[in-house]
Amino acid sequence: MSDTVTLTVTGMTCQHCVAAVREALQAVEGVQEAEVSLADNRATVKGQADPAALIAALQESGYTATLS
Amino acid sequence: MSDTVTLTVTGMTCQHCVAAVREALQAVEGVQEAEVSLADNRATVKGQADPAALIAALQESGYTATLS
Repeated sequence: MSDTVTLTVTGMTCQHCVAAVREALQAVEGVQEAEVSLADNRATVKGQADPAALIAALQESGYTATLS
Repeated sequence: MSDTVTLTVTGMTCQHCVAAVREALQAVEGVQEAEVSLADNRATVKGQADPAALIAALQESGYTATLS
């Protein structure tokens, strides 16, 4: 059983940002996998994580995220 | 005795890029100190490094640099 959360992420400008966002998401409890697209401003997170925790983790890293 | 080389660097979009550029410059032989400005697209390098080696190091990291 696996849930997927898709986030719209703003503030990413380069592949360094993509890596930072991916690492921030992967550090959240329950995350199994995080895929991040710079072109689409999107992060797709698989696992049982709390969406609010995902958004908070990105805010702490300097990015704005909303559920999409 | 210390030389200073100033480079115009294009391709930096965020503070992650600034850090990557600084690290790439600091890894070049002869570099004592590297300061990087995102706002000015500029890197100031102190030491006895070969300017061509500095430019090559940045190209390998995905940035374009010219002597300014």
